[in-house]
Formats: sequence, structure tokens, C-alpha cells
Amino acid sequence: MRPVARVALVGGGVIGGGWAGRLVEFGVDAVVYDPHPQAEAQMREMLENAERAWARLTPSTRVRGSVTFAPSLGAAVADADVIQESVPEDEALKRRLLAEIDELAKPDALVCSSTSGLLPSRLQADMTRPERFVVGHPFNPVYLLPLVEVVAGQRTSEEFLERAISHYASIGMRPLRVRREIDGFVSDRLLEALWREALWLVHDDVATVEEVDDAVRFGPGLRFAQMGTFLTYRIGGGEAGMRHFLEQFGPALQWPWTKLMDVPELTDAFVDKLATQSDEQAGGLSIRELERLRDDNLVALLQALRVRNYGAGQLLHEQEQRLFAEAAAGAPPDPGRPLELYETTVDPSWVDYNGHMTEARYLDTLASTTDAFLRYVGVDDAYLARGASAYTVETHIRHLHEVAGLEPLRVSTQVLGADEKRVHLFHTLAHGATGETLATGEHLLLHVDTARGRVTPWLEPVAGRVAAAAAAHAALPSPDGAGAAISMRR
Amino acid sequence: MRPVARVALVGGGVIGGGWAGRLVEFGVDAVVYDPHPQAEAQMREMLENAERAWARLTPSTRVRGSVTFAPSLGAAVADADVIQESVPEDEALKRRLLAEIDELAKPDALVCSSTSGLLPSRLQADMTRPERFVVGHPFNPVYLLPLVEVVAGQRTSEEFLERAISHYASIGMRPLRVRREIDGFVSDRLLEALWREALWLVHDDVATVEEVDDAVRFGPGLRFAQMGTFLTYRIGGGEAGMRHFLEQFGPALQWPWTKLMDVPELTDAFVDKLATQSDEQAGGLSIRELERLRDDNLVALLQALRVRNYGAGQLLHEQEQRLFAEAAAGAPPDPGRPLELYETTVDPSWVDYNGHMTEARYLDTLASTTDAFLRYVGVDDAYLARGASAYTVETHIRHLHEVAGLEPLRVSTQVLGADEKRVHLFHTLAHGATGETLATGEHLLLHVDTARGRVTPWLEPVAGRVAAAAAAHAALPSPDGAGAAISMRR
Repeated sequence: MRPVARVALVGGGVIGGGWAGRLVEFGVDAVVYDPHPQAEAQMREMLENAERAWARLTPSTRVRGSVTFAPSLGAAVADADVIQESVPEDEALKRRLLAEIDELAKPDALVCSSTSGLLPSRLQADMTRPERFVVGHPFNPVYLLPLVEVVAGQRTSEEFLERAISHYASIGMRPLRVRREIDGFVSDRLLEALWREALWLVHDDVATVEEVDDAVRFGPGLRFAQMGTFLTYRIGGGEAGMRHFLEQFGPALQWPWTKLMDVPELTDAFVDKLATQSDEQAGGLSIRELERLRDDNLVALLQALRVRNYGAGQLLHEQEQRLFAEAAAGAPPDPGRPLELYETTVDPSWVDYNGHMTEARYLDTLASTTDAFLRYVGVDDAYLARGASAYTVETHIRHLHEVAGLEPLRVSTQVLGADEKRVHLFHTLAHGATGETLATGEHLLLHVDTARGRVTPWLEPVAGRVAAAAAAHAALPSPDGAGAAISMRR
Repeated sequence: MRPVARVALVGGGVIGGGWAGRLVEFGVDAVVYDPHPQAEAQMREMLENAERAWARLTPSTRVRGSVTFAPSLGAAVADADVIQESVPEDEALKRRLLAEIDELAKPDALVCSSTSGLLPSRLQADMTRPERFVVGHPFNPVYLLPLVEVVAGQRTSEEFLERAISHYASIGMRPLRVRREIDGFVSDRLLEALWREALWLVHDDVATVEEVDDAVRFGPGLRFAQMGTFLTYRIGGGEAGMRHFLEQFGPALQWPWTKLMDVPELTDAFVDKLATQSDEQAGGLSIRELERLRDDNLVALLQALRVRNYGAGQLLHEQEQRLFAEAAAGAPPDPGRPLELYETTVDPSWVDYNGHMTEARYLDTLASTTDAFLRYVGVDDAYLARGASAYTVETHIRHLHEVAGLEPLRVSTQVLGADEKRVHLFHTLAHGATGETLATGEHLLLHVDTARGRVTPWLEPVAGRVAAAAAAHAALPSPDGAGAAISMRR
């Protein structure tokens, strides 16, 4: 479904600005009304942040809408298809404003409130057309987080409720229709319980605010980015599923493990309800399958945070640095023959639909061999810390034979040449059992000063080891395929 | 610090198995005792999952420890430096077992319990050497989540507490020292409050278990993977910081937005404490700076989930497909210029320890562009079903500039030549925003009869399209670097 053409935003704070940031990214024009003198300047800053985030988020060409400021409430809402109110959580203020919007807007416009938890039946009470009122509660930053809770009041019509759901889906959101009107809706009830418990922990000196935050982001918070509490606990319960989990941990509901001691009784009927809904949610996947789904998601999230060198990703980064240093400390092989520095197996995830290792994974294996060579000549963490490294600047691969998943691979390395700033390597990638050559890789590496980004001579002790490796291989014959260019004339 | 040599795991369930999975990845040998007849088989399955996750998590060469099963508790703990107990949450069972471990272990071994919330002072009560007892509470899956809550009992010595912290840090964890002994510690108190509230929501038919989970994973759960509730709310409060946030949202603590209505009073002293600790946590960063930090993290997490096509990442994927379809429905590629067939971003899992895209992923991107070219000339599923395909037999890459994770990439393609059985392509891989050339790829492809494994002529309609593409590019100048061999003499 195409997004609507024009949305009016009433209130230009953190939430209104976040809506604007999302709408423009989905090609919608937003008109803002906020009488605060700083509102426009602050919104421009928020829009800059939103634009910056989306430019990173996707390489796709984005079709962007516009944001303009209206001089009055009437001017903002007059031509809008949807009006989204995002003023502070003051019920009287919201009721007054919504009644006014109702008078000024087109009769068929949808009127939504961003309230985090005020009851829609009360908010719509003073409207002439209450049937068009829907709560659409988003989460900060609205331009990045897709969740929006959609809540109807007693006088909201099904037609407008469905229009709200379609509208939010059309701007990339996950509309969650809340089944019953309740203070705080769903998500904020969960968050509010956690927040109140967090306040107690700081109040009672069990933890500081930073420690409370760490207790989330290094552990359960990573799970919450991809699975909620029910599916997470189902997996924790093992093969027997949610019923088993409730049997095992049900008694703990009576323990004082939180200030929230008012708990529903785990009657047979309630356990049935939870177990049945959990089975539906799991969609027939076994616990092992769910575990792998969870783990693959967690791996991806940890890798994303490793790129950011932030939170849990920082720990992974540190572990990789340790592994690199340890690998560099390995034993030296015999320099009189091609070096045997690397072996692996074809990871099952490396094969394409026809069961063979994909083209790109040949270079994966060859590049890992180059890394092993660099460690062999002493490019370790300490060397890198001196601001020196070697980069591959040219690669020539001949793909000679295919290889299937899980087959063993072994790579040997001949040093074709080296000088004070370069090294020229030739890897032969063979089947680890049959010895058949599957591919060859010829690689030219430059030694660089990483801070200045300039080519510089190798430093000791690496300089001596590179020269020694080249000298040891100088008498070896040039391997088949070395020094060739790609040509259709051959 | 180096990890200890040998850890005994008492209890081989989900938590004990998770510990084993983590320990082996950090080069530690684990000895397990669990008398359950299925324990060893189940643990082997868990270890397979853990190994699979780590093989994906890092391209580094891992130095792995071993896991063995001991026939008795005594045999398991006798030589261990650290003993980690992970049996069910039954205080009497744990007390009895810990006293027995205390008798059997070396006098200087560290004894830890994985309990989620039982009080260490009570668990250590029957031990002869209670000073060596520490709670180390991990989170499932233990091999991936770094958080471990470290809690001392009244009789725990500072020396053993510090040894526990060092031990956990040495196996890649984030040890969180809990300042005061309390039921449920820190993280599980937060989780337990959320869990109890979640049970009420399902009990009262406000939401199903799946909807409750969606209310987390599409919204606040994404925030929790990188920042906790205090820093998140500080940012939500805007420039005025935590004090302003508490002023604005403090009254809501009295509202029935959760079942947890027992809240600490926001006295001046308590507000001061929260605001001061929050300032320390923010480390001098302004709200705009914190917003960008948060947004960059969220972008990375959303992209990671996009790669998985899961949860919030699925919505992003759908939006990109829409944008791609719209872009494709725009102008068809001009055959008089290089083709623009492929764009992507640098996947967070593609970068190595220095933050740059690894060498091998250049070919990943170039090979994906070759695939896009093949689709462009009509090599689709129907064509492949005719037993025909095209394979790359030779590749020449020039690596010109580095590129960091999450940066946008755009590849253009020039057809250097083609005949009845071959095509010769030249890809230029550029930064999607700056246009800087990062690498070039020259590729020779052969057309093959996949059943016979022999080179054969292109079939129609692909034959005509390949010829047309080559003819359209015949007059273009040969790109820089085409047709070159690797040589140190240049």
C-alpha cells in the first residue's frame, strides 16, 4: 500500500520530530504545528539525525518527502489525511487539543494520538467525531524503531482503526493492535514494571544506574532485539516447551525476586492458554531449531555491535585480538619448500544451490592463507600496534575445479618475490585428501604505515623474515599460471 | 589474563552446557558431572550449537578446549581450578551439593553457583570453606551472552570474589559485581518484573504471548541490545538530562501503568542520586552525541537483522525491495554506458579486527554483481533448469581503497568482450556515497552444460543478449587496469 500524501504533526518535540523523520523517508510530506519558539530549530536537528541514520541504514535510493512548519493549528491540519498528536502526557491538554483538531480537520481525516498510555476512550470524549480517533503509540527514536501500538477507544470505528493500521504499515512500521484498552497498553506496561524495579535497585544501592543498564545490554537485552520474553523462555525450558518451563519456574513467581508480588494464579486453564499460544507462536519449530534461529540472530547482532566496538561487541573485538596474537605465536614451518600455513574445511554455509563452494569463498580461503603468511613473518598485534601492516593490492585467481561442502582444503604458499616494501605470493588451494589443485591465487601485498596511509618499508623483525622467505623460495620454479593476465585471446 | 586450565561443571543442563560451550571457545578444558542418563548426549548437541555459532561469529582461528564427562562428583572436581554448579533452583539441593563439592575440591579451588537469584549467604551456609564461594549468574545462551552477575555472600572473601571476576573476564564475559546481596540480584529482578507483568497481559486478554513478544522485539528490545533503561530515558528527556526526565515523567510513577505500584518516593536526595549517576554514565556526551551513538548502534542492529531477514530486519528488507522495484521501474539502464546492476552495504560481519571490509568480501560483492549481470542477460531459474549456466574461471582484483562496515557500495559493469561460449566482464566497485573507486574486478566466464561439465555455446535468448551487451560497450574505452598481469616489475 502507498503511504498517504500528507500528514499533520501536532507537537514537534522528540516524538513529533521522530514521526517527521520517519514520514519523509517514506516519501510523505509532513506539516508541523508547534507554537514553541525553539520548535523548528530543534526539529531541524532531529531531522538531520534521522536523515543521517537512514543514509547509513540502506544503500537504496530513497524517495523523500518534505517537512514544513504551519503558522497555526488550522493551517497544519486543514489538508491533512492523517493528523498525529504528540504533545506532553497531560490528559486535559490532549482532550482539549483533540477536540480542536476534530473541528479543524477534513471530516474524513484520521486523528491519532502518540500517548504512551492514556486511555483512548477518555481522550476521544470531547470530539464531535470520536469514531475517527485512534491511539498510535510509537517508540523513540520513531524514525528507526518500527513498533507502533494501535489502540481503539469505545467509540472508535473499525473502519478508522483499520485505516490507522494500514497507514502505519505503509510507513514501514509493525502496528500492534492492542486487544483491550488498558493504562500503559502492552509495551509500556512491561517497560514501566522494569523501570520501577530499576529505580528500587538504585534507591537501595544494589546497583548504580550504569550497572543496571549493563545488566540489560550485556545480557537479556541482546535477546530482546530479536525475541521476546515468551519465546526466549520457551527455548530455555528445553524440548518440553512452555508447559515444562511453567512447571519448573512457576513456584518462583511466589518468591520475592521483584517488588511486583501481585501475580496471576497459574491455574490449569491459564497454563493451557500460555502453552497453546506459545505452540502457535513457535510455528512447529523444535527447540533445537529455535535455538539455532536465536543463535544466528545473536551472532548477527554481536557482529553488528563489534563493528561499532560498543557494548557486547567490544568484548568480541577484544577476544579476536587475543586469538590473533596467539595464532601469530605459532611454530615456524620448513622454508625450503612451499609453506604449508593453512587448512580448513568447506563450511556448509559456503555452498550455493548446486552444492559447490561459491566463487567468493575461494578468495576467503586464499585471504586466510595470506593472513597466516603475515603471522608467519611476524605481523602480530605488537607489530600492528606500531602502526604498520600489509595490504593486498592485487589478486589473480584461477578457478580450476569445484569442491563440495565439508570437503577438506589445504593451501600451500610460494613466495614469488619481495622487496623492501612489497611481497608477491602464490597460493595453491588443493583438496585436502586427493591433493587435486582446485584454484590458484596470486597476490601482491604492500607494506603500509597505517596512520599516514602511505607505503613504507617493512620494519624489523618482519623485514628480515620476509627477505628470508623470498630467498628460501628463489630457486623454486615459477608455478603454472603465475604472471598471467586475463585475456579472451589465449 | 589467561583463562584457568581446568573448570569442573556440576550439572549439564541448558546452563551447564552453555558454560561448556563458552569455556572450550576460550581454550579451557571442561570436566562435567551430571548423573542424568541423557546428560552427555544432550550436552553434545548443545556443544554442536555453540561450535556452530562461534564458527559464524568470528573468522579468527580459535584455540579450543575439550569437554569430558567424569564418572563421579569427586572425579570431576578433584583437579579443577574452578567449579561451577548449575543444578536446578532448589536451595536445599544446592546447599547439600556445594558442601559436598567443598569437601572434594582442592583447598584453593574457586566454587561458584549459577543460581539466578538464591542468596549466596544461604547457599554457602553448610560449607567448611565458605570464603571461596561466589555466585556467578550467567544468561542463556551462556556461550554467546557475556553478562555474568557476581555476588558475594556474607562469608565470601574479597580474594575469591576478585578471582571469580578475573576468571569470568578471562573467558570473554562482562562480570557485573552486585553491590548488595538481594533475591534475584539485578538483571533477574528486572526480568522478573517484566515477566510477571507479561503474564498479567496474557491472563487479562490484552495480548497473546506472540503480541507481547512483538511489543518488545520490534521496539524497546532493539534499544536494550545496546543501552539500558537509564541511558535510554536520559536521551528521551532531551538536553536537560535525567533530572528533567524525572520531573516530566515522575508523576507517572503514581499512575496504574503496571501492576507494580510500590515505587520509591522521588525525594530531592533520590533525584540527586539518579541525576549524578546518570551524568557519570553519560561521560560528558551531549544528548545529540548520545542520540547519534544510539542511532548508529540501532542502524547496525537493524542491518544485522536485515541480513537474517528476521523481526525488525524483515521490515527493512521489505522497504528496500519496494525502493529497488521503484528504482528498477524508473529508467532502464543506458546500454551506452557501464551497467549499474548492483548495490549493497558492507555487512557488519564482513569486517575484520581493524574495522575494514576483509579482502575476501571484495570478491563477494564482485561475484554478486556477476550474478546480477547474468540475471540481466536472462540467466534465470528457467535457463538454469535447461542444464546451462556460466562459471567464472578467472578473476583479477585490484584493491584500491579500504571501506568500513555499514558503508554503502555501488558496482558498475563494463562488458569487455564476448563470444559464443564466453564473456569478459570488468566491474568497478565504488563507495555508494562518495563515488570513490574502491576496487576493480575483471572476470572471465565460460558457458557450460552443467550435466556434462563441458563448455558449450550460450542458448537463446541469453546468447543474443550477451552479444548485444558486448556490442553496446564495444566503443567504450578500455578501463584502467584491464588486461594487466600481477608483476613486481611494474
